[in-house]
This record gives sequence, structure tokens and C-alpha cells, in this order.
Amino acid sequence: MTTAIAGLEKDFLDYVKKMQAYNEAISLMYWDLRTGAPKKGVEQRSEVIGMLSSEAFAMSVSEEMAAYIAKLSPQENELNEVTKKTLHEIKSDYDRNKKIPAAEFQEYIVLCSKAESVWEKAKEEADFELFRPYLEKLVEFNKKFIGYWGYKGNKYNTLLDLYEPGITVEVLDEVFSELRSEIVPLVHKISESDHKPETAYLSEHFPKEKQKEFSLKILEKMGYDFESGRLDETVHPFMIGLNPGDVRVTTKYDENDWRNAVFGTIHEGGHALYEQNISNELVGTPLCTGTSTGIHESQSLFYENFVGRNKSFWAQNYELLKTYSNGQFDDVPLDEFYRAINESKPSLIRIEADELTYPLHVMIRYEIEKALINDEIEVKDLPEIWNDKYEQYLGIRPSNDGEGVLQDVHWSGGSFGYFPSYALGYMYAAQLKHKMDESLPEFDELMEKGDLEPIKNWMTEHVHRFGKTKKPLEILKDATGEGLNASYLINYLKQKYDEIYKLS
Amino acid sequence: MTTAIAGLEKDFLDYVKKMQAYNEAISLMYWDLRTGAPKKGVEQRSEVIGMLSSEAFAMSVSEEMAAYIAKLSPQENELNEVTKKTLHEIKSDYDRNKKIPAAEFQEYIVLCSKAESVWEKAKEEADFELFRPYLEKLVEFNKKFIGYWGYKGNKYNTLLDLYEPGITVEVLDEVFSELRSEIVPLVHKISESDHKPETAYLSEHFPKEKQKEFSLKILEKMGYDFESGRLDETVHPFMIGLNPGDVRVTTKYDENDWRNAVFGTIHEGGHALYEQNISNELVGTPLCTGTSTGIHESQSLFYENFVGRNKSFWAQNYELLKTYSNGQFDDVPLDEFYRAINESKPSLIRIEADELTYPLHVMIRYEIEKALINDEIEVKDLPEIWNDKYEQYLGIRPSNDGEGVLQDVHWSGGSFGYFPSYALGYMYAAQLKHKMDESLPEFDELMEKGDLEPIKNWMTEHVHRFGKTKKPLEILKDATGEGLNASYLINYLKQKYDEIYKLS
Repeated sequence: MTTAIAGLEKDFLDYVKKMQAYNEAISLMYWDLRTGAPKKGVEQRSEVIGMLSSEAFAMSVSEEMAAYIAKLSPQENELNEVTKKTLHEIKSDYDRNKKIPAAEFQEYIVLCSKAESVWEKAKEEADFELFRPYLEKLVEFNKKFIGYWGYKGNKYNTLLDLYEPGITVEVLDEVFSELRSEIVPLVHKISESDHKPETAYLSEHFPKEKQKEFSLKILEKMGYDFESGRLDETVHPFMIGLNPGDVRVTTKYDENDWRNAVFGTIHEGGHALYEQNISNELVGTPLCTGTSTGIHESQSLFYENFVGRNKSFWAQNYELLKTYSNGQFDDVPLDEFYRAINESKPSLIRIEADELTYPLHVMIRYEIEKALINDEIEVKDLPEIWNDKYEQYLGIRPSNDGEGVLQDVHWSGGSFGYFPSYALGYMYAAQLKHKMDESLPEFDELMEKGDLEPIKNWMTEHVHRFGKTKKPLEILKDATGEGLNASYLINYLKQKYDEIYKLS
Repeated sequence: MTTAIAGLEKDFLDYVKKMQAYNEAISLMYWDLRTGAPKKGVEQRSEVIGMLSSEAFAMSVSEEMAAYIAKLSPQENELNEVTKKTLHEIKSDYDRNKKIPAAEFQEYIVLCSKAESVWEKAKEEADFELFRPYLEKLVEFNKKFIGYWGYKGNKYNTLLDLYEPGITVEVLDEVFSELRSEIVPLVHKISESDHKPETAYLSEHFPKEKQKEFSLKILEKMGYDFESGRLDETVHPFMIGLNPGDVRVTTKYDENDWRNAVFGTIHEGGHALYEQNISNELVGTPLCTGTSTGIHESQSLFYENFVGRNKSFWAQNYELLKTYSNGQFDDVPLDEFYRAINESKPSLIRIEADELTYPLHVMIRYEIEKALINDEIEVKDLPEIWNDKYEQYLGIRPSNDGEGVLQDVHWSGGSFGYFPSYALGYMYAAQLKHKMDESLPEFDELMEKGDLEPIKNWMTEHVHRFGKTKKPLEILKDATGEGLNASYLINYLKQKYDEIYKLS
């Protein structure tokens, strides 16, 4: 490498590091706002976050950045591998951000922030008409952006690319149709099963403090490193990675349903294991995070479902749960408990859905988004379309738009193309789990012994450590030897629910 | 005002606001590091803090800033009052920072950071020789800085000006000598008094959770606004003001001495009332903080001593304290309790000193700093000089340098000129209290009733709301009608300790 390019590489990395410093500060302010920042300071804090965000954005599209990209790109093969991938990441953001006229982007940001508060009110009052004009504008903006950014095949691909690079409408149409053709009849059979689990005792009182103690124990057992993180309480649970040495998890306690906190913690804990185990050499670059929302979700869902809703896991932890609870489980055998926490039944609200029906909620959103972006349907018809699809896939119909088309925050913030990642996460998780079984055939025995370390290590080896240096499908291919394959999730769900509901 | 200057004023204020945004983010990261940030994230967090601090510093000495100062200063009388004072503040920082050659300042920053960790080790091992070379360099740097900055009268005045603008060696020599001539004989008389309070029960076990509950109650009674703040636990208690709507307090719980937490919380709470009640129009400017370390300390000490160690305050709160304690106070009459929490006896450690002897600790440091800066003594002789002064003023001699000259962190961080503010805070507090008595002659009755609001309002009216728009002596003069006058503190101490120790 020449001295000139080495100097330039260093300057570029320093510049990128400064942008990442802003992002870490912003993330901490965000975490703080949600975990107990005093109410009266919120307005000023939001301004501070806004100022630092603008600064980081300005750096990403600055002339200085343009110069780094122009000078380094032609010589990228002389760069260190991490710098090269950082450059790709930075260049792709730069191109995307530069293509939208600044004034238009500003207008869009303002619209999003207004739309969110209107959506909140509309949801509360179940009044779609209130939100409709905003949603129409948001869709128009996204279509315009696709115009600026260009697209291949289907316009919606450009939006998918924001969250799950490599995944296209073609891929999704195929896997979702396979999934649906198996899940819908399974859901139907379950609803007619005579072997439904008893679940009333799950809602008996479980003191918050005890839930917290138990959640901490489980996080520890998962291999979450408390010297690199902490658990706090928030209204909506989340995970936030500031750097691999500071990855925080939050959860929510409902004394009448301990499952929220425990499975919520396991879910966020799965996200956290990802961020805690990213290779240290990526710190200070934009590669130091999960590679996509779908791969991130594969980690949280793997722990929530393949670990946390597995019988062997509870063979290890059920007695422990009993010591923290109020005695409601004392007369419930492990088998029945296992069936109860895996109860499946159609419901209207995505975030409350069980493992089996959840993908159907996601598909409905995917189909609607795709059709909107391709001008096949209009915003004004959404409530009707939404309700029809729920009836068709899940056999139930929302009685108002608050529990229907208005239930999710995503669209109000301008996020179109995000939803499919949730279902992709399930499929990735099942595919990874299937492969993991080859090297860890003793998976269930490990869980029965409470030794989750080899499981975490497998995930770190094949997923975590790479951060964003590999694209999602690269992670999947390198780990499992093949592209996205829905059959692993299908087989897992069929086998599991056949047994639980004694279907065959 | 012309349109041109109005536009310039706005741009200047926006620029300053951005600097303040960095400072707020940095303060939050600082708070977080001390209240529970995960250990393994600390290194990266420190880098982030470093990068944002450099950025804020770079803005303060940038060409853009120079241009604002050059263009606005000649027309400052056309500016809004807040802008004008902001400009003065900014200009004074600019001049100070620009006068030190950048490379030299960089070297100094590195030295300070090394010196702090060396000091920590030296203190632990009571080994002054370890710290000596660093302290010598730190003193040399400060003398060089005075050379760059210039001085009036005494070189030490330039350092005093960093913390307590307007206060000079001339002033301090006079008030300290008055104070000393009264306190030293008082301390002596107390040591010979036959009426020493019984204090053993003060160290009986007091559960941490109960201390916390009581501390929260007291903060609330003081008028601390919990919608603009929160109480956390740290190794060293502190207050941090992010903006007037977010002013946080921390405390430390010692189950064998509840006084640490309770008086510590009251002390930090006094600081917090100051920051919570700064006028909102100052948000986003460098004026939105306490005007000096001395005036800040006047607020914490006023609440800690004039309120928290007052008999009427405990007439209101003693029964409450009993309900949280383990019964150790049940047989102790209020009067005895009052005498016990005001016990005075010479001690070696400044931060553990009582209200009466504390100013003597400060004077010793002041005399040493002044002599060092004026080349009257040498660093190598400090342990001897320190110990002799303790013997002379307090009648006790440190047995090693860990409990002697190495006890305070200040010098290792390059802070010379800071210590006098602690004693000034006492004098300001006594002077303000004396004046307050004119408008609130029912001061003690209010405390007995637990109605501290008029007291807080008086302080807000005369001190808090102005933030940094008035210099410390301006605050004092406008509030009390005179300059610094040590006699109020002297009279207060004599009267109080005469009664407690039945001296006359």
C-alpha cells in the first residue's frame, strides 16, 4: 500500500469514527429517554438529539465524504478488508441520501414526525380517516424515492433492499406462498383439535420483582454478559447496542401475565447476544451492528422460540420458575406447562400473536405494501382489504380499525418494506437451527443441562461476529450451505404443533 | 436593530446552541458512566466523550466563532441582553483558549489524564514521591498559562478568576484571616468543653432502602422537582444539570452512617434547586448554569447546614426519620439529636470535616496554592508544609501523605484556584441567609411547619433564575446590598456552637 493511500485510509476511518461517536451518543440519549429521563427535560433532549442527528447526516453527505469515496473507491482493493466494506456501506448510504433533493427529504422528515402523532390519535379513536391523508402522502413520498433510487424487477424491491438486501419480491412471493399453504390448514386443524391446553393459571398473579429476578437468571443462562449490558424496564421492550461492550436490554412486567416479561426478555436477549459478540475490530465503523433486520430477528426468535419455548429448556428451568412464582404451577406437570406456553390461536394483534400464526400477520402487511407501491390498490380501501385478508388467512375479522389496519406504528414513521423481515427472521432461525443440529446433535440435552454456551458459540461463529461485513444471504449461505428455504420452518412448525395438539 | 445584525445574531445563537447540544450529550454520557454503564463499554464510551469534547472545543475556537465575535462585539449594544451576555462569555472562553498554543494545551490534557491515575495510586500507597514529578509539571503548566493569560496584582488571581470571577487574593487574605482568627479559638474551646454530645447511636445500622426512602422524602420537601430530575446511587455523590428540566442528583448509602446519604442528598439537592430554577430563556446558551463554583456551593451549603442542620428542620422531620430507622433514635430527645448531628471535632480529611472546621481545611489549600504559584515554596516540600499547617490550624498531624497532601483529586486534574470556592460558598450562604431573615423572619417557623417553599422562592428570586447572567459578586451585592462580608458566617458559627457546646 502506498503511503498516500494509507494516510487517506486513516483519515477516512477517523471521519467515520466520529460519525459513529455521534450515533453512540444519540443511542444513549434515546435509551435514557425511555428508561427514566425526567419528563420536563424531554423537549430539550429531543432538540439535542435532532441537532446531533443532523450533524451525523450532514457528515454522511458532505463534500469531505464525497472526496473520500471518489479517491478511495478506485483503489479499494488496496484497502484493509474492514475499510473496504466500510467504504461500500458508506458509499451506498451516500448515494441513497444524495439522490433525494434535500428540501424534499426535509419535508418528508417533518411529515413523518407529524404522521406519528396523528397515527397515535387515529389508533386510539379507531378513526382511519384521520390518518388516511398522511398515509397517502407517505406512500407517495416512498414511490417518489423509488423513482430517484431506481428499481430492478419490482418497485417494492427497492424498499426491501433498505432492510433486507438481496431479498426480492420474487423470493418472498415464493416462500410466503409455501408457508401460507402449510400454516393456514394447520391453524384450521388446531382450532378443531380436542386437545387444547389448559392456560388459565398462566394469568395468575406473579409479582413484578420476582419476574425481574427470574428474567435476570434466564438472561445469565443464555450467556448474556452483564459486564457488557444491563436490564431495565420500559413500556415497550427493546434492545439497544451502543458498542459490543454496552448492549442494553429492556423489558416490561405485567403481573397478570408473566410471559410478557420472560419471553420478551429472552427475545431481546437474543438480539443482545448478536450485538455483544460482534468482532471488536468493527467498533467505530458502520459495520458494527447486525447485518439486517431479518438476521437480527433470526437471533431474537431463535432464542424466544427454539430455545425459550422448547420443552428441554423448561426441563431445566421449570423448577426455578416455580421458586419465583406464587404457586400457580405447583400442580401443573412440565408437559402441560410446555403445551400451555405454546398455545396457538388466531388473534387480531400482530405483536400478541403466537409463533404459528405470526407469519400470517406479516404476509398480510407484505401483500398490502407491495400492492400500494405498485399502484394496485389505494390507501382509501385499506381498512376493507385488511379486514378481508384477516378473515381469509386467520378466520377472524377486526371490529374496528384500531385493532385492524391502524395497529402498527411502522407506516406512520415511513417504514415500508420492513415487515417482511419479521417473517424472514423465523425462516432464517429455523434454517440455522436445522444446520446447528448437525454440529450439536445434543442440542436438547444441552438445554436440559442448562449449558447454552455451545449454542451461543455456534451462533457467534456463524452469525454474530461478522456484524455487517456479510450481507444477510451471505450469512445464510455460509452458515447453512444454501439460500433461503422455507421448508425448515414449515417442518418445525408442523412437527411441533402436531405433537402439542395431537393432530395426527 | 438592522436586519443584517438580526440575522447574524440568530446564526450566532444557533451555533452556540449546537455547542450546548454537545455539552448536554457529554453530560449525559458522564452521568451514565457513573450510574451503571456496563464496565466493558467504558473504554469506547470514553473515546466517544473525547471526540465530542474535541468537537465542542474546536467550535469554541473556530474561525467561524472568531468571525461572530469580531462582527457582533462592536455592535453588542444592539443585541438582546441574553445574546450580549452570551457573547461576553463566549469571547472570554475564546480569548483564554486561543492564548495557549494548541500543542501545549494538548500536552497538558494528556498530562492531566496521566496524573489522575498516578495520583490515585500514590494516594492509595501514601507515596508522595510517585506523584511529585507530575504535580511539579502541573504547577509549571499553570504558571506558564498565567504567563499567556496575564494577571493583575497577584499571579494567583488569574486562577481564581477561572472559578470565582471578581474574587482576588486581596479579598481572600482578608476574609480568611478574619475567619481563622475566630474559628481557631472556637475549635480549641470546643475541644475543652465538658458538654460534648453523645453520638454512638448515629452509627447504628440503618438499612439502605430506608435511607433512600427518607432521602427522597427530604428532597421532595426541599422543593426538588422530580419531574425535572431523579435520584441515583454512586460512589461519589454529585449533581448534574443537563438542562433546567433535567437536573439529576446522586447519593451514596452507608448502612453504618446514614448521615452520608441524608446530608449528601440535601447538599446535592441544594445544587439541584439552583439548576432547576434557572430562567428558561437561558436554555441553549452557556449562561444556563450556576454562575460560579462558589455561588453553587452557597446553595448546597445553605441547604445542608442552614436548613439540614437546623433544629427547626428536625422539629419537623425527626419523627419521620424515626419511622424509617431501626429504633436507634427512639430514646434520644430532639435536642440531643440536634447536638449530635452538629458535633465538631478536628479531623484530617476535608470531605469528612464538619461545618465549623471545614473552612480551615480550605484555607490550608489556598495558602499552599498561592505560595506555589508565586514561587514561594516548592512542590517537594509540600508534605512537610501541609502537615505543619494541619498541626497549626487544627491541632492534628497526618500520619501519612495519603491522609495528608494526597487526599484531594483536584490538583491531579490541573485544578488550582478551585478550593477557595468551597469556603466562599459558606460565607455567601451565611450572608444570603442573614438577608433572607429580613424578608422571612419566620424562617424557623416555616421549617417547623415543613413549608420550605418561601425559602426556595427567595433563593430563586435572588440567585437561581439569573444563571450566569450575573457575576458572583453581582449576585451577592444585588441580593444583600453589600460585598463579601465574613462576619455573617462568623456570627452564625459562634452563636450556634456556643449553644451546642455551652461555651459561654
